[in-house]
Amino acid sequence: MAFLNDNYLKLRAGYLFPEIARRVKTFTDANPDAANRVIRCGIGDVTEPLPPAVIAALHKAVDEMGTREGFHGYGPEQGYEWLRHAIAENDFRARGLNVTDDEVFVSDGSKCDCGNILDVLGHNNRIAITDPVYPVYVDTNVMAGHTSDADESGAFAGLVYLKCTAENGFVAEPPKEKADVIYLCFPNNPTGAVATRGQLEAWVKYARENQAIILFDAAYEAYIGDPALPHSIYEIPGAREVAIEFRSFSKNGGFTGTRCAFIVVPKDLHASTARGERRPLHPLWLRRHTTKFNGVSYIVQRAAEALYSSEGKAQVAALIEHYMGNARILREAAAAVGLRVYGGVNAPYIWVSTPPGTTSWQMFDRMLGEANVVITPGSGFGAMGEGWFRISAFNSRANAEEVARRIKAIAW
Amino acid sequence: MAFLNDNYLKLRAGYLFPEIARRVKTFTDANPDAANRVIRCGIGDVTEPLPPAVIAALHKAVDEMGTREGFHGYGPEQGYEWLRHAIAENDFRARGLNVTDDEVFVSDGSKCDCGNILDVLGHNNRIAITDPVYPVYVDTNVMAGHTSDADESGAFAGLVYLKCTAENGFVAEPPKEKADVIYLCFPNNPTGAVATRGQLEAWVKYARENQAIILFDAAYEAYIGDPALPHSIYEIPGAREVAIEFRSFSKNGGFTGTRCAFIVVPKDLHASTARGERRPLHPLWLRRHTTKFNGVSYIVQRAAEALYSSEGKAQVAALIEHYMGNARILREAAAAVGLRVYGGVNAPYIWVSTPPGTTSWQMFDRMLGEANVVITPGSGFGAMGEGWFRISAFNSRANAEEVARRIKAIAW
Repeated sequence: MAFLNDNYLKLRAGYLFPEIARRVKTFTDANPDAANRVIRCGIGDVTEPLPPAVIAALHKAVDEMGTREGFHGYGPEQGYEWLRHAIAENDFRARGLNVTDDEVFVSDGSKCDCGNILDVLGHNNRIAITDPVYPVYVDTNVMAGHTSDADESGAFAGLVYLKCTAENGFVAEPPKEKADVIYLCFPNNPTGAVATRGQLEAWVKYARENQAIILFDAAYEAYIGDPALPHSIYEIPGAREVAIEFRSFSKNGGFTGTRCAFIVVPKDLHASTARGERRPLHPLWLRRHTTKFNGVSYIVQRAAEALYSSEGKAQVAALIEHYMGNARILREAAAAVGLRVYGGVNAPYIWVSTPPGTTSWQMFDRMLGEANVVITPGSGFGAMGEGWFRISAFNSRANAEEVARRIKAIAW
Repeated sequence: MAFLNDNYLKLRAGYLFPEIARRVKTFTDANPDAANRVIRCGIGDVTEPLPPAVIAALHKAVDEMGTREGFHGYGPEQGYEWLRHAIAENDFRARGLNVTDDEVFVSDGSKCDCGNILDVLGHNNRIAITDPVYPVYVDTNVMAGHTSDADESGAFAGLVYLKCTAENGFVAEPPKEKADVIYLCFPNNPTGAVATRGQLEAWVKYARENQAIILFDAAYEAYIGDPALPHSIYEIPGAREVAIEFRSFSKNGGFTGTRCAFIVVPKDLHASTARGERRPLHPLWLRRHTTKFNGVSYIVQRAAEALYSSEGKAQVAALIEHYMGNARILREAAAAVGLRVYGGVNAPYIWVSTPPGTTSWQMFDRMLGEANVVITPGSGFGAMGEGWFRISAFNSRANAEEVARRIKAIAW
């Protein structure tokens, strides 16, 4: 008799984004006139076309694939050497950070990497996540059997929740208790908070003292404008021994529908066997990646490489500037009506308090009904997100300006 | 203290294809003159360019991605509806098989799907695999902790090995003992064997009687020319309740470097909770796929869709005819020198016995040294593969003809 993985039955049925889609559909079905007035600032999906350098690289690679000489079949699962080199050189070594080409693993998405990394870690780790949090960190741990059932607030016994509040600027401090694996995301999704160098130093110190591993999600690092803020965990001395970094081309090159990302697994990073022997994790991830993955599409890897050309870099910078211009407009609008506003400075997400007595989902319904704007309710990211909502800056300028007008037009 | 997954330490260091690459490099380093004479018939990678219909679809999709109106960001993780519809309609419903669009999940590779499917299954299943076998089925179960250590022959305690031999035509019969999850691959990699309708009926009967699940890998179904042979497990009545099917565009459309595949999870398929309740597996896979995967590149999905156009179908048929022409040439050459030959008729792999007293790896070294041809040693696929080797038909016609000449020139 075949058995299923019972852990999946612990997951809540209503994942955040499907529930948002359901409510939007209900609203537009009931209000067909408002349907084409709806502006989506919910899911963090880019809106601008792929940069011209990427389009040119894609066409060129497609042409190659149509000839016997230029055809590419199976590539190295870890990614082509020229892409791994471009990544390590531009994102790390050019910034003085020691990352070798073969510590970079090219993948088809950070969401996949965040889930898959658990494959090479033991089931006996104590997992720490922030609250609010990107739901994938939690759900993949539930699926892997690292939790008990959820309580009424949606919290799972077995996880260490690190509270992020306005008081700590939405950057959690290392806990008093021990954790073995800690997920950190900066610039943060959903709050837009960015850890300072000092805050990351405290985390690296904690991880080294506890022989813990930090899973550092830097998918939004391109949005950091402040030169004092670290882009990579490897800017912190000692991080190579305790941190894996997740990066993506989704939010800099606009690859959400093109699919390419990477992780860095330093060879200095070790974890323990059940018997307590320290072993490097790099060979395990290499084995996982080559056994359960078959590489990213050749043409997409050529597209990612083009982001590192001088034209590509300039075009990415223009995209970031565009979205951060939106962020400024949206941020100012929310502040102008008297709401408390975080994020939106070195991150494409703006984190806004609801008016007193209004829950996140009530705010969602109000924004949809009164302003025809889709936002993301903060409580969907965890219990500590209650009383907050997230506005995404991924939009056209015209839409961002219109959303700002509508926010100001609501009778707060 | 962070723990690693100890199960990875049970895996053998020398995975088959890296070991082949190592020996080829050693040979060509020592024999630089022979280096550009080497013809690779080892790894099953296609050699011919992408079909023109695919190239046209790719260029069109790339152009779309360069405009604001045609840009595609995050798509549905399960695949775009138009592709799921084209798959279900052409590969199944047009052949009278009941598969709905939403039972099709588009992915970036069958290798990934074969590994990932274990996520939704329990750890208490008794797993059956054939011997010889595609190594990924075994390795992913080892990684998931479903085995003990390997013995000297490389066999893992905890797995049920189904012996495939010349006597049973390399098609295993259902075992006397119980198994909960069974991997079947037809047309088979590595032996090229294809199960008859009667043989698959016996397997479906077994699975139904034991409430087992068949993981049916049909990545090579396009190579079936004999109209009496089933292309899909769903041609067998009752299979929808017990089988998941894996399909790929790698070997029909030549997508090994482009990356697109799919699996079918019928809604009628159930598995048991630990308490013995029967539950459908479809919602679990949907949850897994949407949580740990972010969809295949939009442009690649458009490329896959083009394989179902009338031009695309004709171009795929021509590719299959080309490779099967190679298979015939290679098959006849091996038979002409007196070796026992299987496969290569409804499959792109030819399975050939070594001369008496010659091991698979000795044969590998001889073929490399004497004929400068890279084959795959049968023992790399399991203990029962000892004394056999695999020749891949994926090559240019000129190379296939040259390999045939060199096989005949060896002093057997």
